[in-house]
Amino acid sequence: MISGGVCAPKGFTAAGVHCGIRKNKTKKDLAVVLSEVPCSAAAVYTQNKVKGAPLTVTKRHIEDGIAQAVICNSGNANTCNAGGEQVAEEMCALVAETFGVRAGDVIVASTGVIGQPLDITPIKAAMPKVKQSITGDGNDAALAIMTTDTVIKQYAVEFTVGGRACRMGAMAKGSGMIHPNMATMLIFITTDVKISSGMLQKALSEDIVDTFNMISVDGDTSTNDMVSVMANGMAENEEITREGEDYSSFCKALNEITVHLCREIAKDGEGATKLLTCTVSGAKNKEAACVAAKSVICSSLVKSAMFGSDANWGRVLCALGYSGADIDVTQTRVLFSSAAGEVLVCEEGAGVAFSEELAKKVLSEDEIVIDVSFRQGEGCATAWGCDLTYDYVKINGDYRT
Amino acid sequence: MISGGVCAPKGFTAAGVHCGIRKNKTKKDLAVVLSEVPCSAAAVYTQNKVKGAPLTVTKRHIEDGIAQAVICNSGNANTCNAGGEQVAEEMCALVAETFGVRAGDVIVASTGVIGQPLDITPIKAAMPKVKQSITGDGNDAALAIMTTDTVIKQYAVEFTVGGRACRMGAMAKGSGMIHPNMATMLIFITTDVKISSGMLQKALSEDIVDTFNMISVDGDTSTNDMVSVMANGMAENEEITREGEDYSSFCKALNEITVHLCREIAKDGEGATKLLTCTVSGAKNKEAACVAAKSVICSSLVKSAMFGSDANWGRVLCALGYSGADIDVTQTRVLFSSAAGEVLVCEEGAGVAFSEELAKKVLSEDEIVIDVSFRQGEGCATAWGCDLTYDYVKINGDYRT
Repeated sequence: MISGGVCAPKGFTAAGVHCGIRKNKTKKDLAVVLSEVPCSAAAVYTQNKVKGAPLTVTKRHIEDGIAQAVICNSGNANTCNAGGEQVAEEMCALVAETFGVRAGDVIVASTGVIGQPLDITPIKAAMPKVKQSITGDGNDAALAIMTTDTVIKQYAVEFTVGGRACRMGAMAKGSGMIHPNMATMLIFITTDVKISSGMLQKALSEDIVDTFNMISVDGDTSTNDMVSVMANGMAENEEITREGEDYSSFCKALNEITVHLCREIAKDGEGATKLLTCTVSGAKNKEAACVAAKSVICSSLVKSAMFGSDANWGRVLCALGYSGADIDVTQTRVLFSSAAGEVLVCEEGAGVAFSEELAKKVLSEDEIVIDVSFRQGEGCATAWGCDLTYDYVKINGDYRT
Repeated sequence: MISGGVCAPKGFTAAGVHCGIRKNKTKKDLAVVLSEVPCSAAAVYTQNKVKGAPLTVTKRHIEDGIAQAVICNSGNANTCNAGGEQVAEEMCALVAETFGVRAGDVIVASTGVIGQPLDITPIKAAMPKVKQSITGDGNDAALAIMTTDTVIKQYAVEFTVGGRACRMGAMAKGSGMIHPNMATMLIFITTDVKISSGMLQKALSEDIVDTFNMISVDGDTSTNDMVSVMANGMAENEEITREGEDYSSFCKALNEITVHLCREIAKDGEGATKLLTCTVSGAKNKEAACVAAKSVICSSLVKSAMFGSDANWGRVLCALGYSGADIDVTQTRVLFSSAAGEVLVCEEGAGVAFSEELAKKVLSEDEIVIDVSFRQGEGCATAWGCDLTYDYVKINGDYRT
């Protein structure tokens, strides 16, 4: 792990400023990430039928597998309004003018309230400030894309590809409207690895199955979700154009980034006090394990029980039962664990005697693992989520005001 | 509408007592409903793979289409434990001994904590008390099946079949673990109509598609859900054995009961302060309308916004978008209404100007309709749910303790 976020890889700079989309002047609301040279680009998008205008524009722009910059605002999702696409195109044009890149090589994203027009005026006015403040540190950009997030989310790693030192960095925002369905938040990943856009898309699409698609905060799939990767090739490794050792090294680095961000996003779920990880093993196959793990993580009753540090494992069984997964409930084993220890609560689908005192201790930690196992096969999966708290309701009871 | 609950139809009596499954002596925890004569019987059950032992026993008992009594306890679900089926059979045998009916004609149900053994001792000891307190009023029985319910749920109607005055009554429990999937709580319906068990099952199975399957409190499908109907024929109408006017009268009465209970259950959802009704019209077909309406009702974000009386219609669009329903989002119209008036918030998939003051007033009522319409076809559906509140979390943070 290294510092610098999206600016950790060679040739990337970034800025984050307050432009005025948000009334609170201390909250940055506009981010730009820039590469010195054009990059191979790949992205995955929400599967919500209601899609933010910026996603349509981004899709069009990276159809050719090339991007050089990202612009992203918070405070307004630029979704379900009139003329949203035009505003998104204007945002890209502003980046193009300011930094001398092609407008068609800009990735654009917006996050915030749905259904209000996004005014281009404050964004346009802020571009000189963006240019002035562009820097080799990703911190301000990561701050600018936050909405209800309570902690900044960025990460970077160093690794080698074909003997060359390479780097990968990322920033993320995501706290509510988080539910597995292709991609579930905004994630911008940068790397200096040289890799074809085809292999980059393959690496990303395969990675998210086990990472971003396995998070849930509230079961609501956002209209503006997107994960993008830009690889500018400045590490000068031999270009990755097929599977092999180099591709594997790349995928491993990507997975380290994505798993880290999954945990960060789930832990910072709206109102959350605890990170919940559900590991499923011994399922008939991978699909059954995924479906089962997600169902546990999504259950409001499991989430509430975890908030109350209540070892109510019957709710875990219940969530497994209605998941639709091909599982043998009579072979289910459930174990809760955390830094404070572990407690076995269910074996062969029925309760076992356990110390309530120990269970309380285990579940009072802020990172809890719900370990579910069957004896049906080799299928295993991990899903991440968080507890359901008073604050989730509070945050979402008056989000717009 | 008439009084008497499950005892409103001719020939039905009931009792509800405290037997000791619950520690709180003021809370009744054991109910029995009895018909003077054997009844045509029909039922639908949860689709959760984890099924309560009582459901297995009930299924076996009414395979022949006949039942004469119901026994139901609260405080323990008799699920995910060892020997649960035997205990459920013993409960039926106790009813048989006490009231001179066949054990194989008893419907048995349990509701409460999952995963703990259910002790037959207090139930056995209470049977003389049950016998003594059997009465022509369904009130005590309806009280005895309540768990986290805050209001008693019973209803009865009078109607005619083939010129004969007939009655139908019902009691229900349901507040948490409520989510559309076949049947989603415990409902016991009684009637004095003469109807074959085949037609009774057909009427029930068709009715629940638009009623109990369209409720959601928290997305969790219970392990012990069941809806049963017993028809004892004492109204002496000509037996209903096929479709026709009599069958239609019966279905209409059944639907009046079930819709009433749907609203009652949704309104009394755990922690709820508001009943939410989502009506969808103009969808391509019925299925699309159902899926869309349920998705809105299930969204934690919509539910939280309604708790806060916040007209955040973007979340309604978001929930429609990820529902998977075949809908045209650019043709979506959304209107909030209540006793305080109505407010149009979205047309053709985009926001329209509206008075925030009026919206606040409309959404501050305790019964809110979210009216969604498309221009794609004739498909329409109604779903019921409730807001998500601090108290939901509180109730479920320490349910077992």
